This record gives sequence, structure tokens and C-alpha cells, in this order.
Amino acid sequence: MQQRSEETRSKILASAIKLFSAKGFAAASVDDICAEAGISKGAFYHHFKSKQGLFLALLDGWLKTIDNAIEVSKEKTVPETFMQITEAFPYIFATANEGLPMFLEFWLQASRDEKIWQASVKPYRRYHKYFTDLIKKGVDEGSFVEVDPELTSRMIMSTAMGMLLQSLLDPKGAKWEKVARDSTNMLVNSMLKK
Amino acid sequence: MQQRSEETRSKILASAIKLFSAKGFAAASVDDICAEAGISKGAFYHHFKSKQGLFLALLDGWLKTIDNAIEVSKEKTVPETFMQITEAFPYIFATANEGLPMFLEFWLQASRDEKIWQASVKPYRRYHKYFTDLIKKGVDEGSFVEVDPELTSRMIMSTAMGMLLQSLLDPKGAKWEKVARDSTNMLVNSMLKK
Repeated sequence: MQQRSEETRSKILASAIKLFSAKGFAAASVDDICAEAGISKGAFYHHFKSKQGLFLALLDGWLKTIDNAIEVSKEKTVPETFMQITEAFPYIFATANEGLPMFLEFWLQASRDEKIWQASVKPYRRYHKYFTDLIKKGVDEGSFVEVDPELTSRMIMSTAMGMLLQSLLDPKGAKWEKVARDSTNMLVNSMLKK
Repeated sequence: MQQRSEETRSKILASAIKLFSAKGFAAASVDDICAEAGISKGAFYHHFKSKQGLFLALLDGWLKTIDNAIEVSKEKTVPETFMQITEAFPYIFATANEGLPMFLEFWLQASRDEKIWQASVKPYRRYHKYFTDLIKKGVDEGSFVEVDPELTSRMIMSTAMGMLLQSLLDPKGAKWEKVARDSTNMLVNSMLKK
């Protein structure tokens, strides 16, 4: 029973990715997603409160690899943690092409709709806090020189978001996964205590 | 006559910003823009080839302050050039809220439409080339340590795009203009030959 429920959830998520990417987030309805997944509306609402809730679940799933890298790095030094996070980059960039038009559209809606905004800004603020604390820890443990943790976190978030955006706009313009890894190295090196 | 023509052009641009922001780029038609500006369709097509051409003119106008800062910096050292560019930030961020939903939507369309993509990727590649050359010059003139110009330019572009995206998503989350200025300082300092 549990397994069946998991399968239904997976089917909904896969159908949503497919339809959001093809038709767009606004144009793809819950009915469309149910038809694509071959499930009832009741089953849909058993798993997700709304189309918006479904979208946020997709976002969480996509960020999961980064969260996992963060999780397994708890006992490591901060420079090691950054290297661990780069391990998630191949997955992130491989799936970005499929997911990013959807995220752009969601951000666009978020900029026009207070409720969607509240929901979408949450993971983003969580990462900002995480990186602020991580940089602080790096300074405290003696790995990094005295940088401003808040500002550095903003730069990391900006670079990550901007690089994903660029990889979407110009997928063949660079080896984005490598650029992201090299950028992380460059950033970490610029902060290292020599 | 020349002045009248300039006025018409300005009216079209102002009406387009208003309608693209309110209704979105896809939903706002040339007819809507003409009605809002109080001009004929003939006058519209005298100034712009298409709605897409109009959008690119808006983009160019928005980037003009950065281009001007670049222009006046030709005789300066590279660190001075970066400082000159930060002078454009107040304008860029002040107008971003009005312009960014429009750009997000355009990028979104670009990710789905080859022709729009070709047009929208052009200014973006121009800046990438500009920053690559600027970093090279900085290394050659002895201002910067031996950094990878290509990679550093990618990071600058990413940071700029990501910061604009964040300022749109979370306008009250930080003093973005200050964050952008401080980030530029931090980046330039990390490259300076000590």
C-alpha cells in the first residue's frame, strides 16, 4: 500500500515536469497532470495540496542533492564541505535544462503574486542562512581569512543562481558544470588563510 | 520633425514597459501598445520591426548606463574601470523592479524559441567578451594576479545576473545596490596584486 502510494506520487511528479516544461506552469492544469499520470483527482489531492504545492515539491526534490551534500559534510572542514557540494553539480546541471524554464516561470509568477512569493522565497532564504553560517564557521575554525559572511553568502547565492540562468540561456556556451566547479575552487581559494 | 519622431519613440518605449510589466510580454500586443501610446500602427512599425525588436531596444536602453560607464573608462586602469561600473548600479537596481519580470519572461521565451534566443543571447555574449578582455587587460597591466579571464568573466556575469534575480525575488531582503558594490570590491580585491 505504502509502495503503491509512493509510485503514484512519483508518477505525478514525472507528469508535472513533463507538462510544466512543455506547456508552462500556468497553462498546465491539475486535470492535465492527472490525465498524463493516469490517476484520479482524488489521488492527486491526497498527495499535494495544490499545483503550487506540487511545484514546491519538485523544487525540493531538485535541491535534495545539495541538501544531501550538506548533510554528509557536517563533520568536515568548511573547504571540504564546499568540495562536497560540487559533487552535486553534475546532477544539478544535467537536470537544469528540464527544470529551469519551469523555475523561471515560477519566479516570474512569484514576482507578481504575494502567496507564491512567500512559498518560493523560503528555500532561497534557507540557503542564504546556511551559507552565511558556513562561512562564519570557516572563519571560526581558522580555514578562512576574515570575510563578511553575509556578503559572501549573497555572492555565492548570486553566482549559483546566475550560473544556472546562464546554463539555461546558453547551454552550449560553456561546460557549465566545470565552470561551476572551477568557480567554487576560485572562491574558496580566495578566502583561504595562506 | 526629428524631435517629434523621438517623442513618439519614447512614448512607445514607456507604454511597452508599462504593459509588459502589467500584462506580460506575451499577452501585451502591438495593438495594446499603440492604444496606450496613442499612436498608429504605422508609426509603431516606423520605429520598431516587431514586438521583439521593441523589447531588445528596452534591454539596450536599460544596459546603456553600464555601456556608458565602460565607455568613459577606456583610459583608466582596470580596477578603476570596475569602480566606474559600480556608479551605474543605483540606476540598474532602481529600474530592475520595473524591468525584471519582463526580462524573466523574455528569457523564458528565449529558452523555448530559437529566434528569440538568438536575439537575446547577443548582448549577454557581448558582456562576457567585454569582461574577459577587461580581466586580461588587468593581468597585462599588472593590476591583477594571474587569474583565468574566461572563468572570471563567467563569475562576474553569473554574480550580476544572480544578484538582479535575487533583488527581484526578495527586494527587501538586502540593500542590493550596496551588496552589488561590496561584492564588486571584494572580487576586485581578491584579484589585486598585493
